[in-house]
Parts: sequence; structure tokens; C-alpha cells
Amino acid sequence: MGCAPMGHILYDEVMRYNPKNPYWFNRDRFVLSAGHGCMLQYALLHLAGYDSVTEEDLKNFRQWESRTPGHPENFETPGIEVTTGPLGQGIANAVGLALAEKHLAARFNKPDMEIVDHYTYAILGDGCQMEGVSQEACSLAGHWGLGKLIAFYDDNHISIDGSTDIAFTEDVDKRFEALGWHVIWVKNGNNGYDEIRAAIREAKAVKDKPTLIKVTTTIGYGSPNKSNSYSVHGSALGAKEVEATRSNLGWPYEPFHVPEDVKKHWSRHTSEGAALESEWNSKFAEYVKKYSDEAAELKSIITGELPSGWEKALPTYTPESPGDATRNLSQQCLNALAIVLPGFLGGSADLASSNMTLLKMFGNFQKDTPEERNLRFGVREHGMGSICNGIALHSPGFIPYCATFFVFTDYMRASIRMAALSQAGVIFVMTHDSIGLGEDGPTHQPIEHLASFRAMPNVFMFRPADGTETAGAYRVAVLNKKTPSILALSRQKLPQLPGTSIEGVEKGGYIISDNSKGNNPDVILMGTGSELEIAAKAADDLRKDGKAVRVVSFVSWELFDAQSESYKESVLPADVTARVSIEAGTTFGWLKYVGCKGKAIGIDRFGASAPAGKIYKELGITKEAVIEAAKSLC
Amino acid sequence: MGCAPMGHILYDEVMRYNPKNPYWFNRDRFVLSAGHGCMLQYALLHLAGYDSVTEEDLKNFRQWESRTPGHPENFETPGIEVTTGPLGQGIANAVGLALAEKHLAARFNKPDMEIVDHYTYAILGDGCQMEGVSQEACSLAGHWGLGKLIAFYDDNHISIDGSTDIAFTEDVDKRFEALGWHVIWVKNGNNGYDEIRAAIREAKAVKDKPTLIKVTTTIGYGSPNKSNSYSVHGSALGAKEVEATRSNLGWPYEPFHVPEDVKKHWSRHTSEGAALESEWNSKFAEYVKKYSDEAAELKSIITGELPSGWEKALPTYTPESPGDATRNLSQQCLNALAIVLPGFLGGSADLASSNMTLLKMFGNFQKDTPEERNLRFGVREHGMGSICNGIALHSPGFIPYCATFFVFTDYMRASIRMAALSQAGVIFVMTHDSIGLGEDGPTHQPIEHLASFRAMPNVFMFRPADGTETAGAYRVAVLNKKTPSILALSRQKLPQLPGTSIEGVEKGGYIISDNSKGNNPDVILMGTGSELEIAAKAADDLRKDGKAVRVVSFVSWELFDAQSESYKESVLPADVTARVSIEAGTTFGWLKYVGCKGKAIGIDRFGASAPAGKIYKELGITKEAVIEAAKSLC
Repeated sequence: MGCAPMGHILYDEVMRYNPKNPYWFNRDRFVLSAGHGCMLQYALLHLAGYDSVTEEDLKNFRQWESRTPGHPENFETPGIEVTTGPLGQGIANAVGLALAEKHLAARFNKPDMEIVDHYTYAILGDGCQMEGVSQEACSLAGHWGLGKLIAFYDDNHISIDGSTDIAFTEDVDKRFEALGWHVIWVKNGNNGYDEIRAAIREAKAVKDKPTLIKVTTTIGYGSPNKSNSYSVHGSALGAKEVEATRSNLGWPYEPFHVPEDVKKHWSRHTSEGAALESEWNSKFAEYVKKYSDEAAELKSIITGELPSGWEKALPTYTPESPGDATRNLSQQCLNALAIVLPGFLGGSADLASSNMTLLKMFGNFQKDTPEERNLRFGVREHGMGSICNGIALHSPGFIPYCATFFVFTDYMRASIRMAALSQAGVIFVMTHDSIGLGEDGPTHQPIEHLASFRAMPNVFMFRPADGTETAGAYRVAVLNKKTPSILALSRQKLPQLPGTSIEGVEKGGYIISDNSKGNNPDVILMGTGSELEIAAKAADDLRKDGKAVRVVSFVSWELFDAQSESYKESVLPADVTARVSIEAGTTFGWLKYVGCKGKAIGIDRFGASAPAGKIYKELGITKEAVIEAAKSLC
Repeated sequence: MGCAPMGHILYDEVMRYNPKNPYWFNRDRFVLSAGHGCMLQYALLHLAGYDSVTEEDLKNFRQWESRTPGHPENFETPGIEVTTGPLGQGIANAVGLALAEKHLAARFNKPDMEIVDHYTYAILGDGCQMEGVSQEACSLAGHWGLGKLIAFYDDNHISIDGSTDIAFTEDVDKRFEALGWHVIWVKNGNNGYDEIRAAIREAKAVKDKPTLIKVTTTIGYGSPNKSNSYSVHGSALGAKEVEATRSNLGWPYEPFHVPEDVKKHWSRHTSEGAALESEWNSKFAEYVKKYSDEAAELKSIITGELPSGWEKALPTYTPESPGDATRNLSQQCLNALAIVLPGFLGGSADLASSNMTLLKMFGNFQKDTPEERNLRFGVREHGMGSICNGIALHSPGFIPYCATFFVFTDYMRASIRMAALSQAGVIFVMTHDSIGLGEDGPTHQPIEHLASFRAMPNVFMFRPADGTETAGAYRVAVLNKKTPSILALSRQKLPQLPGTSIEGVEKGGYIISDNSKGNNPDVILMGTGSELEIAAKAADDLRKDGKAVRVVSFVSWELFDAQSESYKESVLPADVTARVSIEAGTTFGWLKYVGCKGKAIGIDRFGASAPAGKIYKELGITKEAVIEAAKSLC
């Protein structure tokens, strides 16, 4: 209720959008970072004429399959740009949206034709301000000089636990100035409409800095007994207090009733929005004529349609190709894809030279070079992930990637989950994926991370074994825009393995070698990533001993689980119970494939600081262990 | 190398410690938040006379089982207070250490006897500064006025990816001022020893604010060709450059050789340290005489010895006790424990009234009331976790707890992992543990979280079903100081179940009811938390149909897995393959208990916004589903 004036001014006076086409490319973006106040946004979308929020939808607030869930979900409700609710995510997404605009504007605008030109607005609350992810993202927004990002800080002094004074006494204005933002304070946010309007004008005039408009409001404004109280933060007012509030505000209408004069006032947005889009469409038609190459690229970003033949750019490998770390092979893929995919861009959290994520043909995206495609996130994993989610959700053709050490997915897990939930097809490039990184020790060595993402819905967790599988993982990642992908990549050198294939990767689990007949091997060995080589070597030895051995790569469990029962049976026949898996991570979950009589070799403890080979040996991740387990089973 | 002057001055001139007893209670604490520079700390510990780092240890840097791993590990090397390496964790731990001191000083110091009185020092780098977790923790440090926290910011302008200018141009001094810190700038950190000394004096004089001493240094100072370059950030200098550096600095000695005069200079710390401790011991002996009650409490915090009979304080329940949400039952435990355990304190990330974590007999720990035990973290989950790790590692008798919604463990996963790795026995109180929270929808509903922590080493992941199991979980958590515990607790009301027991919880998985004979039921139903009731009800119905049904609670997988094979067989006989599990979360991992012929009922998708009962029904988490699965198996 305290945010109503900001919301009203934005949707009724300031923002450019077409309610009948919520996906119009050049619309202004709005993010309600304080997502628990979503009823306000639903009401505004309804007033503005979006078909996605009818009066019926408003009445079905927080009901099963309604388009008005308890927090805004972009995949439920057209008009909602990003999913918010977990605090701080929305403002970080907004930084990504504003970055996307600045980048596209720099790449595609021409002196005679400004084809990309929109603002990104956000409303954030005290909670968003306290979260580290917002600090990370806002520090970058200041660094990048995202002048068209305008964030309203709803400064209501109340959080769930009471006055914000009990935990939040920092000087927010000063902090944002330190981050390179322009800061404006609207002291009377409850009904200071003109001050808010003036602040927005001032913010737009400052072109080289993002703006924070601190709007001091009263939570639950209008409620005679509960305003300025923490009891309205997450709870409903109650029927009696709603009545008192209606009376206090002089609002005589029935619940959900929109009076005719209000309807009429807002109805113009339908025609105005259609006109805006139509005008832009004409401009774009002209742009297509004058700048056909750029137009083709921009169109691909707008529509998400991949340029034909893009897959051919992916590098190919044979068993004779030189062995290499999959992080290096990944860089070959990234550099190949960036040439053919106009919306491909990304970077690392200060580990570009370790994650191998630099795009060699591009410079750094910076304040004065926003047309470039290497993003430099600094040591800000969480902000990085959420910014990339915002980029991905800006336009269907954006394919952002971001990188750090795999273990530091712990720092950005919330943003990865938000990517999965909100169907943002970000590619998470995660190197140094096991004890194989060696000396840095247990703080840097992932153990439970593969399992933890295999358990997460709507994420592809890839652990490619060589160049072919790395290319295959990128292929699937690019093709599946609604499912984020995580690639766990090795620091250490690995051989190109015979039998790996891109088609295999697409199936998630597949046979890379087999000397058995009739789908009836003596034993099935399975592995992923750097341990697939160990499985393959163990198979060689066992075959010399006369065993019929099948080796299976489980590069993506999610993809394998989605295959037909007959395909699964062709890889893992039910009758073959002698099965051994090896992976330099927890054995948690492997039972699914090794079955009740099989053996899973893994690491169910933390790692250690030592040379990688030594740790592998000490923790029993060896060919000998596989052979011994196999022999005990067949 | 740039940090050497700060380190030298701290260990040689400023800090009070006893090298022969690294655990002396009243020592100054030092945290190298920029943990990759740990060789400096090892060298200083060695010079200062700590037995934990011998010349041999220095030579075994980053080798298997050495006491000098690649990042500082408190559990490997006495003298290292906390495990650092993942950036930002150390400074947040330091905030916890300083909070612990301020709290104990306020509780136990007397006008005539200052028995608690130490400083907490930290060195952090640019990376720590960029991480959101450090912002969260430092905002709280300013809010709490932790005057005895003195942090050095090694401002060397270089990160792994090059100049910090590529991603980090915020005004750090101004930001810290905004956070309520005192800020001092030492412009010549390479050899400005006197400026560093003066800064420390100034910092100590400011008693109501933490101090940031920004020390501008040159990375790799002394190296003629590689100083001020990102190439020395994470990589060794190389033999040739080491030689050049030695020559440049006029250091003619062999590697690892400590010249006699240096040895002699540092040797005084052994006697001085012993004297410091002995002096304090005398003072404490007097304190014991004068203030015996306080002394007993403080002693329990110092030693970690639990007051005898503390377990009796835990509430008990019978099936006749009123049903309640486990988050409320948890609050009864928290309030009972805080009375009997002197080192028990904690709080929530702005959800105290939802997590039910307030200690009713205490006020809020604040700047002017630091003797109180309710910590108010604001919406800062990550900082909260890392601060609690610092508290836990300050003294063995501290038992900090911290709370948020279970889904937001995603925000603090790195700190939970650090608790597990560094053996910090924090209790993580995680409420709203499933779709049972209802309307807030999928951003707030955990799905994969139970599995993701079951996969993590050295964590107890509890999901208690009622009051008895909640009390049992707290009992195990308090008794296991080297293993952090996570309690997943319900928002919704649950009945007190017949058959649950504290002894059962200690075994992790146990039979709560059984009408079979000879360890041979027709079917075994298993569940956790709110779904154990569903399993119990399904059993009732199946028994009416004449089936012999066993119901098993799997409240903690880790504890069950640690039991003997015979115990496990007594709960899950190998011959009984008809098994059904039910849990309102991912089925990932359940195969371990349901076996290859069993069925796991769970949720392998994201949740939804709707009333809880509706979601349970729509997603099939029902008694009917259990009965159907059971009937299909037996």
C-alpha cells in the first residue's frame, strides 16, 4: 500500500508498454524486487489492460493454478518480467535487464535510428537492501554506469521482525553514493506524487549513473490501526481493518470493483500501447532495410530463433585430438558459439583466466564499451548469477553464461535455483570440479555439489568427460532455453575418449564401449567427467581378463531419466546387476544406476590439500578400485 | 608479501597470545580472510613459536596430511582460528568472534575485574570486499558497534583477472563509513610500519565502532618483475623470480632458513605468552572466588563442558500433548536450552516471529545491550551463518543457532558447508520446510534441500515429526559440537505421534509402530517430518485390511547410516522388499532405503502457490498414495 503511488505513476504515466503484447521487445521493464507486495503489481497489470490478470485472477490470489501466485512468477503471468520473492534477486535481475539494454543499444543503435531504448525500473524494500546479493549487483550497476536503471527504495522502516532499527542502521544513501549511484530522497512517499514525478525526471537526466530514489513511506498506508506496523508485512489486514481502511481512504466500492471513471482513465493504455509498438515496428522495418546485417542479429536476439547451422560452429574432436582440460575445451566452445550466436555473452567472477571463459574476439563490457561481450563480474558469484538471469529473461535470444569454481555454486545457489524455476536458460560454467584441483584443498573441492544439483528440478547438470562431450553439453544447453545448464569441468588434462558422442550426450547416459553380446555384459562400469577415463581403463584391463564389459557415460542424469524405458534397458539391462560407478564426488544418488547389488565408488567426506594424483590415490578413486569392485561382482 | 608488514606488526608487537597454548581463552583472535595468502600466517606462527608449524611443516606446504594446507584450516593447524579461503567468510567469522567477545565481556566483566578482554583482527582483500557476505556481516558489525574488531583491508588493486578497476571501482572507504565503521587509510603499506602502528593505536581508541584500516600495498612486493601484477595472485613466483626477489630485498639466506637474530627476536613470545596466560589464570582464580556463579557459567563456555543434567530441561511430550507445528515445538526447546546452557544464543534473519526463535527470557543483543542473547541478523542469511560459525569457534561452549526459511539455506549454503568443514557446531533452525507452507509458492517451498544436505559431509540433517523428535534433534545437536545440525521444521500443525522417541532420533531411523512378528512385516512404510503422520495413518488403514505393517521414521539419514549392520537389519530387513517412503521433497536418494523394489513418493518438480492442503493433494503426497503403493507391493 505504501508503494501504490510509485506503482501508479510508473504504470499510468511513465512506463512505455503494450498491454496486449506483454513481450513487445522495446517495452520498459519493471521488477518488483519486494515480491511479497505482488498484489499491487497484479492490480496495476489489471488496470493497465493486460489480459493475463482479469478480475477473476485477482479474486483467485494465491490459489491453485491461478495467474496470481503469492509471489510474482514470470512463467505464470505475462507482464511479470522475472520471478521475485527471495529478497535481493529482483534488483539483481533488474541490473541484468538494464545491462542487456545498454549492450543492445550500443551494438544496434545508429546515429539516425535509436532502435533499442527502454528503461528498467525496480522497487526494492529494506530486505532487498540488506541482502548481499543486492550489494554485489548494485556495485556492478554503479561500475557499469547503468544510467537507465531507476530503482525505488521503499523506505518504510518496518521489516517482519519490527522496526528496521533493530538490525539495519546503515546509511543507505551514502552506501549507494559510494557505489557510484545517483541518489534522490523523496521524503513523503505516501502521497507526494509530484515529488516522485520530479525524482523520475531527475533520474532520467542523469545518464551515466543508475539512480536510487529513496521513497520514505508508511507500511500499510491508509490502514487506520495497522499502518506503520510490522503486522502488515506478511499478513493480511483482516476483514475489519480492511473495512476501516476503505472508510479512512473514502473508498466506498465493493472488493475488486473498479469504478467506471478509473476504468476509463486507464483504458487509454490499450490504444497507446498498441500505438507505441506499431510505431516501433515501423521503425524496425526501416532498420531492417538500412542495416540488414545488424537487423538479422537483433532479430535473432528478439525472437530467440537460432541462426541456421549454428551447431556447425561447435568444435569437433576425435580420440586422436590432443588431450586437454575440459575447462580449456569449454573455452573453445564458448569462443565458437560467440561468433555464431548474436545473444551469446558472459564472463566470470574474477576467475576468467582459471575458468577459461574469455571470448577472445571481444573486449570487456564496461561503462564506455558496452557493445563488448566479456562481462567482468568481480568476486560476486551470487550477483553474477542473478544478473545473468535478468539478461536471459530480457529477450529470448540472449544466452548468458557465467563462471566460477564449481564449489562456489554454494555462493550462488539461490540464483541457480531461480534460473531453474523461472526458466532462464543461463549456462553456468563451473570449473575445478573435484579433488582434481589438488592443492587448494577442501574449501575449494566440490564433493556434494553434483548430487545437490541433480536433485534440483529443471536444471541440466552436465559433467563432460572430454571435448566431444563438452561440445555436446553446450549443444543441449543452447537448444534448451527454458532449462539452465551447469557444466562441471576439469582443471586437469583429460584424454579424448573413444566412443563419446554428441548424440550420446543428448541421451544423458550412453554406452561408450562394450565387448559384450546380446545386451548382456558381465559387468557395467559407469562414470562421469574425469572418472570416465578411469572406468574405460579398468574396462580395458578386465577385458584382457576375458570379461565382457560395458562402459557407460552418465554425463547428465536428467537427460537419461527422460529417455524411454526401452532405451534405458538397452543401456542398463535389468538382468545385469554387476554394476560399478566411479565419480570423484559423493556416492549419494548413484544407487539409482548401480542398483541394489552394484557398487558406487566415490568420496563421502571432505577433500584435502595435496597434489591431485595423491588425493585420488588416497581417497581410492582409482582404476584398481574399479577392477576390484567389478571382480567382486562378476 | 604485501601483507607482511601488517602480519609482522600484529604477531610481533600487537597481539596477545600464548604460542604454547593456542587455545588460551583470552587470546586476541586473528583471521586471514584472504586465505590464499596463508603461507604468511604459517610463517608468522612458526616465528612466534607455535609447535603446530615447524620448519618441516613449512616445507610440506600443500602436501597430503600436512599442517600447512593450501588454505588455512582450523581443524588442521592449532593457531588458525577459523577456516578461510572462500572469500568473505573470514571477515564474517571475525564479526562473530568480535561479537562473542563483546557479549562475554558484557556478561562477565566486573567493575573490579576485566576477565574477558581481547581484540579480533582480520586481513581482507579486494575479493572479500566484493563478496556480499562481507557486506552483510560488516553492516551488522557497524550496527552492533563492535569496537574491538580491527580489519585490515589489503588494498593492492590486483585481483586474479587483473586490475581491480575492471570490476571494482566503488568507494570502499565511504561504504564502510556508511556502515558505521571508523576508517583509516595507510597510504604506504609496503613499508610504512609506523603508519600501521599509528593506525592500530587509533583504531583501539575508537571504542564504539569497528575500524577498517585500508592499507595500500603492492601485490608481490619485493618481486622486481612480478610485483603489482595479477600473475602473483594465485600462482607461485617461480624459482627465477624468487631468486630475483631475494636479491632485490637483500635476503641472502637459504629457503626456509630463519637467521639467528630473527629467531632470537621472536623467541621472547614464548615466555611473554606464557606470562600473559599465567597472569590471566591468576585473575580468573580470583574471579572464581569472588563471582562463583558467573565463573561457573564462563568456565562452561570456555571448556565446552555441558552443565550436568542439562538434558532434563528439554521438554517432553506424549501422544496426548496438543499437536503443534514443529517450529513452535522448536521454540520450546530453544527457550528451555537457553536457561541451562550458558553459551546458547542466536536468532533469525528477520523471521524471528515466523521461525519462532525468540528467547523469551532475554532481550536483544544490541550495541548498548550486548549481554543479551537474541541476535537480530536482519535479512542477511549468508552473513548470519558465517557470523555464527565465528561464534561457535570462539569458545567450545558457545552453541549458536540461526534461523530462516529452509528454502533460504540456498542463500547461506557456503556458510553451512564451512560449518561442516570447520567443525563448527552451529544449529541451523530452518522452518517452513516444504510445500506445507502453502500460498507463498515455489520460491519459498523447499524441494531438493533435504537431499542436498544429506549429500553434504559432516552435517546432521534432521526432519523431526513432532515434539519428541524435535527435542531429540536438539539433544543430538547440543551433544555433537563438531558437527553442525540443520533442523527442518514445519509451518503447519502436526500431531504428537505414538512411538516417537529421543532414543530413536539418536539412531536416525527407527520403528515407531509395527504389528508384524519376527522382523518380517508385509510392508515397511517410512517417512520424515510432516509426512510421518501420513505414513502412520496409511499403516492404520492397511492394518485394518489385515496387513502386517511397520512404520519407520527417518529423522536423520546420517545417524542411521552410522548404525551397526545388525541394527539396520532390525529396522530394514533385507528380505522385506515391499517398502514405501513418503516425503514432501525430492525422491532423490530415497532408493537407499526403499530398495530396488520399493516406491518413493515425493515431489520431483517445483511447488505451487495455493493452500497447503490443496498442494499436498494435487502433488500426490497423500495417505491414499501410500496405501496404493503399498498394496501394489504386497
